[in-house]
Amino acid sequence: MKTIITIAASVIALGCNAQQALWGTSVVVSPEINSDNTVTFRLAAPNAKTVQVTGDFLPPQKIKTPHGEFDAPGVADLEQKDGMWQFTTSGALDPELYSYTFLVDGLKITDPSNVYQLRDVTSVTNIFIIDGATADYYKVKKVPHGSVSKVWYHSPSLGMDRRLTVYTPAGYEKGDKNYPVFYLLHGMGGDENAWTELGRAAQILDNMIAEGKAEPMIVVMPNGNADLEAAPGESSLGFAQPTIQLPKTMDGSFETHFPEVVEFIDSNYRTKTEKHSRAIAGLSMGGFHSMQISKEYPDMFDYVGLFSAAILPKEGSESPVYANFEDKLKTQFDKKPALYWIGIGETDFLYKANEEYRKLLDRNGYKYIYHESPEGHIWKNWRMYLIEFVPQLFK
Amino acid sequence: MKTIITIAASVIALGCNAQQALWGTSVVVSPEINSDNTVTFRLAAPNAKTVQVTGDFLPPQKIKTPHGEFDAPGVADLEQKDGMWQFTTSGALDPELYSYTFLVDGLKITDPSNVYQLRDVTSVTNIFIIDGATADYYKVKKVPHGSVSKVWYHSPSLGMDRRLTVYTPAGYEKGDKNYPVFYLLHGMGGDENAWTELGRAAQILDNMIAEGKAEPMIVVMPNGNADLEAAPGESSLGFAQPTIQLPKTMDGSFETHFPEVVEFIDSNYRTKTEKHSRAIAGLSMGGFHSMQISKEYPDMFDYVGLFSAAILPKEGSESPVYANFEDKLKTQFDKKPALYWIGIGETDFLYKANEEYRKLLDRNGYKYIYHESPEGHIWKNWRMYLIEFVPQLFK
Repeated sequence: MKTIITIAASVIALGCNAQQALWGTSVVVSPEINSDNTVTFRLAAPNAKTVQVTGDFLPPQKIKTPHGEFDAPGVADLEQKDGMWQFTTSGALDPELYSYTFLVDGLKITDPSNVYQLRDVTSVTNIFIIDGATADYYKVKKVPHGSVSKVWYHSPSLGMDRRLTVYTPAGYEKGDKNYPVFYLLHGMGGDENAWTELGRAAQILDNMIAEGKAEPMIVVMPNGNADLEAAPGESSLGFAQPTIQLPKTMDGSFETHFPEVVEFIDSNYRTKTEKHSRAIAGLSMGGFHSMQISKEYPDMFDYVGLFSAAILPKEGSESPVYANFEDKLKTQFDKKPALYWIGIGETDFLYKANEEYRKLLDRNGYKYIYHESPEGHIWKNWRMYLIEFVPQLFK
Repeated sequence: MKTIITIAASVIALGCNAQQALWGTSVVVSPEINSDNTVTFRLAAPNAKTVQVTGDFLPPQKIKTPHGEFDAPGVADLEQKDGMWQFTTSGALDPELYSYTFLVDGLKITDPSNVYQLRDVTSVTNIFIIDGATADYYKVKKVPHGSVSKVWYHSPSLGMDRRLTVYTPAGYEKGDKNYPVFYLLHGMGGDENAWTELGRAAQILDNMIAEGKAEPMIVVMPNGNADLEAAPGESSLGFAQPTIQLPKTMDGSFETHFPEVVEFIDSNYRTKTEKHSRAIAGLSMGGFHSMQISKEYPDMFDYVGLFSAAILPKEGSESPVYANFEDKLKTQFDKKPALYWIGIGETDFLYKANEEYRKLLDRNGYKYIYHESPEGHIWKNWRMYLIEFVPQLFK
């Protein structure tokens, strides 16, 4: 073995280090979560004139549009000392998963010291977690972990192969049990990755199942954009940049194709196929889809969740899905769903639409559970709604 | 349904748009791949004094260290006009997947116009693909797609649950066939995500299987850092920032635990379990691991691939894995592996170590296939080695 020349492992690391140095990796620590749960952000930018941080941990800014007032992430200034810019939050942050970016002389950048980033529709932001309370469900803990799979199914009605995310609970592979199935839908501009990335769905399920708060279940997260095969970068469109609004969203075609998803899952996974073993929920556009699909197929889902649902009249649409809404809703509620759950934030721009929908349900004596939370149309609420919703399933 | 107030879909998009505007989304197109395969990079940074792009599509810079000369990505200047910085490559780029970042007044940032990013060890860079030639294998095409799953297994010897990536070929879920298994290992600082993200392994396998160039196979990509449960951000360490060199890398513990991975796969997937239905290959540290594991368990793998392998003498190590190297190698080669494949780039800093190793194999008359490529210790080579290696398996 002496014929093999001596190269220490440190040289390999050095080879990488040399490359890293040129890619500009810094040794700056940012964000630093301090022991009192204040957070310090740092950026080494000696040539910058101003550096700001913008994120959902800061008091929101109100922005006015002709369509109403929206909350947007707040902004705070970093201060410079010897080329190092720094900002520490004035108080402890509550447990939560937060997003932020920097603004350097007005240019939005992600934090070069933090490799953890998420894409939300068209924006990439950095993330961090403050431990404790509900946020502990967002963490990977030393509990049995389910599997998360990216799987393709064929949709005859949409004429394409399409990608979806499947969570199977710990023990699924080894066993021979059949499991109930929860279909979990994203919002406009989202995709089949949204609930496992921004929504921390796999961590929430792992942790709630481990604590005995949720039944072991399969969670299926399809792509709700009927014109697309898959998430940005994962389809034959290649690395085309994502857009918010897409053709064939909310035109009925996703809803009418949905039994193809259910059939694919039932024929490829060990599922329980009775109505009382199936749930559907979604956020925003996915809440709208859940409302439509569950009334369109009233024998398919016994558990329905509308999270900040985009409740829209679609009577002008040509799709038969949106015709005779109240008649179909009556059929659905005559069959007494085991759970019809509505969650919305008090500042959500869809609050009023949901209030009107609840009035309609009340007028007809249709039973539902209503959950109102602070804040608006944000992932923090949707993660918490998931934590509220999941323990009520398949009981 | 008139009781439900009218909210157009455009308002939901507007709600998102308002948020997007504040997050600073730009409408700048960058990178733009022009029809002649030149590429234009753009950045709107009116307050910047200098903007550069650094990437592996530019002629590499040579950097000298006490341990030798390394190639690092080149740098080019963008020019400003009315606050918009721009650079177009002087010539067409060859088909390939490329990485880049910007340097704004010396600060490394990712391109805010391009949501496609990959983390390589501790650095996040943007990516784009120039179509054609081998790079077409890196694309998602309209072919049957396999599934990619993140699965956890228990390692008794390492005392933890550990995450791995499993690619199952199209049709796996529905069928009852057993498949051969290819274990594919990452390099130092990498993890169980590296081959599917930087390595485009799922796209390469999908496309080569669809073309009939590769046998349908299961590909298993474990985490080679024996001290870790999972990739950064996916373990109970939370969002700790990644480091290059980790404890318990190349100390023998990953190699001795490896049969636990094989046993987990064989008991949870429909595998062929004979030696001639098993392959192992890896890049850099993973090439070292493949060399060690295949000689340590000479009846386990009939196909072995060393991609830019970090061939290290480890005789000073306490691990029995590294003792009696030549004796064990003799045992392995006496059993005549179906394929022992060595690939390396001509400027790789491990070139000489591989040359010495080949001399050792030659002296003993051990048969292997040798593939020498241009350039060095880079993902471009590892993706191409995978494309070379995979068609030779399980024939």
